[in-house]
Amino acid sequence: MAEPAVRVGLVGLGTIGTGVVRIFQEGRERIAERLGFPLELTVIADIDLETDRGVSLAEYATTRNWRELVDDPEIDLVVELVGGTGVARSIVLAALDSGKGVVTANKALLAQHGEEIFALAASKRAEIAFEGSVGGTIPVLRALREGLCADRIDSILGIVNGTCNYILTEMEERGESYEACVKRAQDLGYAEADPTFDVDGTDSAHKLSILLALAFGVRVGPDQFGVEGVERIEPVDVEYARRIGLRIKLLAVGKRGDQGIEAHVHPTMIPETSVLARVDGPMNAVEVQGLHSGPTLYYGAGAGSLPTGSAVVGDLMELARARRLGAALRVPPLGTPALREVTLARPEDLETEYYLRVAALDSPGVLSEITGALGEFGISIATVLQEERRAERAVPVVITTHTARQGSLDAAIRDIEQLAEVTRPVQVIRIERGI
Amino acid sequence: MAEPAVRVGLVGLGTIGTGVVRIFQEGRERIAERLGFPLELTVIADIDLETDRGVSLAEYATTRNWRELVDDPEIDLVVELVGGTGVARSIVLAALDSGKGVVTANKALLAQHGEEIFALAASKRAEIAFEGSVGGTIPVLRALREGLCADRIDSILGIVNGTCNYILTEMEERGESYEACVKRAQDLGYAEADPTFDVDGTDSAHKLSILLALAFGVRVGPDQFGVEGVERIEPVDVEYARRIGLRIKLLAVGKRGDQGIEAHVHPTMIPETSVLARVDGPMNAVEVQGLHSGPTLYYGAGAGSLPTGSAVVGDLMELARARRLGAALRVPPLGTPALREVTLARPEDLETEYYLRVAALDSPGVLSEITGALGEFGISIATVLQEERRAERAVPVVITTHTARQGSLDAAIRDIEQLAEVTRPVQVIRIERGI
Repeated sequence: MAEPAVRVGLVGLGTIGTGVVRIFQEGRERIAERLGFPLELTVIADIDLETDRGVSLAEYATTRNWRELVDDPEIDLVVELVGGTGVARSIVLAALDSGKGVVTANKALLAQHGEEIFALAASKRAEIAFEGSVGGTIPVLRALREGLCADRIDSILGIVNGTCNYILTEMEERGESYEACVKRAQDLGYAEADPTFDVDGTDSAHKLSILLALAFGVRVGPDQFGVEGVERIEPVDVEYARRIGLRIKLLAVGKRGDQGIEAHVHPTMIPETSVLARVDGPMNAVEVQGLHSGPTLYYGAGAGSLPTGSAVVGDLMELARARRLGAALRVPPLGTPALREVTLARPEDLETEYYLRVAALDSPGVLSEITGALGEFGISIATVLQEERRAERAVPVVITTHTARQGSLDAAIRDIEQLAEVTRPVQVIRIERGI
Repeated sequence: MAEPAVRVGLVGLGTIGTGVVRIFQEGRERIAERLGFPLELTVIADIDLETDRGVSLAEYATTRNWRELVDDPEIDLVVELVGGTGVARSIVLAALDSGKGVVTANKALLAQHGEEIFALAASKRAEIAFEGSVGGTIPVLRALREGLCADRIDSILGIVNGTCNYILTEMEERGESYEACVKRAQDLGYAEADPTFDVDGTDSAHKLSILLALAFGVRVGPDQFGVEGVERIEPVDVEYARRIGLRIKLLAVGKRGDQGIEAHVHPTMIPETSVLARVDGPMNAVEVQGLHSGPTLYYGAGAGSLPTGSAVVGDLMELARARRLGAALRVPPLGTPALREVTLARPEDLETEYYLRVAALDSPGVLSEITGALGEFGISIATVLQEERRAERAVPVVITTHTARQGSLDAAIRDIEQLAEVTRPVQVIRIERGI
C-alpha cells in the first residue's frame, strides 16, 4: 500500500505563493521520491482567485476564507505567504494553535511578533520553519541553526536586500544617480512601486533581527538598533570608494564585542578584494565569522518567486518528515530552547573606520578647521583627498579615519557642520576592513 | 534531575581529532545549552597516546585499542578520524553494526566504501553523518541534503582542495613556479610532506563522488570519471588567463546534461568577475545551480583542525538529538532513500571552451598548420595570441576556442602534436564561462 500523503494548505497566492505552486507541479515525483511519501498541495486560499497568475489551480480546492483552510482537519501543514503583520499574524497563530505545522517567509511578522509566535509553537509542540524569510533561497538559517551549531558565532555581515544591492551595483557600474537606478530596479521587477521599506533599510532590519536570534541566541527587535538605508548614497561616494579600493554595500551587521552584542544596518564600505564585495545585482550573501569555523559565506538569490518558493517547499519537506516520523521540534526553530534578552552595545561606544565627505566652500583654512575638529575628539585621519577646484563648483574634502568611537565622531561631525564654509550635512559611511 | 548525557568516543587523535577535543573543552556549556542535554566526550582511542598535542586528555578514558571503545556499551556515538580506508573502514562498520551513531570526515572511505557503509547504516537503523568530509567547515552537504531538497540540482562546481587552491593563488599572485609554491604550502602546513593525493586531484575526486550522491542521487565512484590535478599548470598559463579576464581553479564538476550526468576534476579557467574566482588561498567553495533556486554558493575553510572539528561536533549534535528524541534517520544521510546507478556522459561527448598553449618553433606557416588542424575537426577559434619572438626563445601560440566537443579537440591536439615544429605536449585547460 502506498504511504498516505502529508497535506499542505497555502494561504496567499502572490509572487512567492505562485512559485510554490509551480514547484509542487514540477517537482511532485522528485519530492515524493526524496521523502519516501507524497507531499501534496491540496487547498489554496486567497482573496483574489480570479487573476491569471500563469499556473493552473484546477487540481486544488480553493477558498477566499483562510479560516476555512486553517480549520480543515485534512490539512497538516499551512504555508503563510500573505505578507504584512495583520492577517498574516492571525493565520500563523490560528494554524499553530490548531497544532498544524507552519511555514512562512514573512520577516516582518517574525521580527515584530516572533516572541508570541515561537512561544505558541513551543507550547503547542507545533513546528514552524522560515528559511525563506532571510536570504530568499539561500539556506543560511539552516547553516546557523545546524551546520554551525557547535561553534560560537562572533559576527554576521549580511547583504540581505536585493533591491538595495541592485541599486548600489548599478550606481557603481553606470555612475548614474540613485533615482535613475531605483527607476531601473522598478522596471526590472527588483523594486516595488513603493520601494520605501527596501531602500530605507527596514526590510534588512527585519532580517537582521532574525539573524541575531539564530547567530547569538538573543531577542532583539528591529527598532532596537540603528538602521539606515541607501537613499543618501551619491555616485560621488561610489566613485571615491572605488579609488581607495572599497565598494559600498548595505550591510546588516551583528557582532559579539567587548561592549556586548552590536547590531546595525548601514551602508558600509568593504574591500573590493573581499568575497562579499563580489555580490552584485539583486544577489544576497551572508558572511558568518565563527570562533572555530572561521569565515563562511552563503550566497544566492535573495528574492524571487521560484528561488524563495524553493526554500519554502524545502521547509515543508522538513516539517512533513518531522510529522511523519513523529519527531517534531527535533531542532528548536531558533536553534536554542530559549532566546536571551540582551542589552545591545550602545551605538556611541562602537568603533570603526569612517569615510567622510564634506562639501565645503574653498576658502583658505577650511581643511585645517575640519581636521582640527576631528583632532579635538581624538579622531585620527588616515587619508585626505581634495582635488583642485574646477570653475566655481565646490569640490568635496574626502577623509578616511582610523578606527574611531562613534560617539566621538558624531560630536566632531556636529562641530564640522557648524562651520560657515560647510554647506551641506557631512556624508558619513562606515568602513569594514576585517572581511 | 539533570538530563543524562549522550556519550561520544573518539578514534584518531590527529589534526582534526585534536580540534574536536578542543571544541568539546571550549564549548561544553554552549553545546549543552543548545541541545537541552549534555553531550560528553568520554573515551579517546589512538595508537599514540604519548605525543603532546597541546590538549589535556586527563578527563578522558584512553585506549590504544579502538575495539574497546566501539564495544563499550556506554558509548552512544563514535567519531572516526583515523583516515585512510583500512582500519577506518573496520571502525565505522563495527560501530554501525553495534547500532552506534557514526561521525566521520573521511572522504576517501566514503567515496570508496560508501555503498557498504550506507547499506549497513540503513539496515541497522544507525545514523551516519559526514559534513566534514567535503569543504571542511562549510555546511554544504546539509545545504544539498536539506536546504535545497525541494529543487532539482543541475550543476555543482567545487573548489574542494585547499592545497591546490593555495598553490594556484600563490602562482597567480607571485608569478612563481609550481614547485616553489608547493614548497611554501608545505612550510605553512597547507600541504603534506607527500602532497600527491592533493595535487593530483585524487582528494577532489573523492569529494566529488560524495557531492554527486547528494546533488544528483547517483552512485559514482572516483575512478569512473576523468581526474587531473594542478601539477602541469605553469606560471605562463596563469599569466595568459589573467590577460583574457580569467583565473585558473581546480574544479570538481558535476552537471546534469543532455548526455547524462557529466563529472570530472580538472584545472579550469573561470571569469575573474565570478564569485568563485574570488576564492583564494586555502579556502574552499562550492557553487550549486538549481532549477528553481538558481546559483547558490557556500564558502569557507576547507580544512584545518578547528574548522573541520567544528563540522564534526555539529554532526555529533545532530546525531545526539536524533538519538535522544528517537528520530533516527529523519533525513537519509544521502538525502534520498536510495542512490541510483548511472552511466555518466562519455568524456568525448562533453562540450566546453578551451585554452590551448602550443610551444612551437617560430617558422613560417606554423600558425596556419595549427589552426588548420583545429578547423579540420570543426573547432572554431575565439582568440589567438602570439607575441613577437624575443632572442632565441620559442614563444607559445595561445589559442582559445569556442565551444568544442572534447572528442574532436583531443583528435585535433593529436594532429598538432605530430607537427614537426611543435616541441612539447599542448597545454589544454577548460574554460567555464557560465558562472
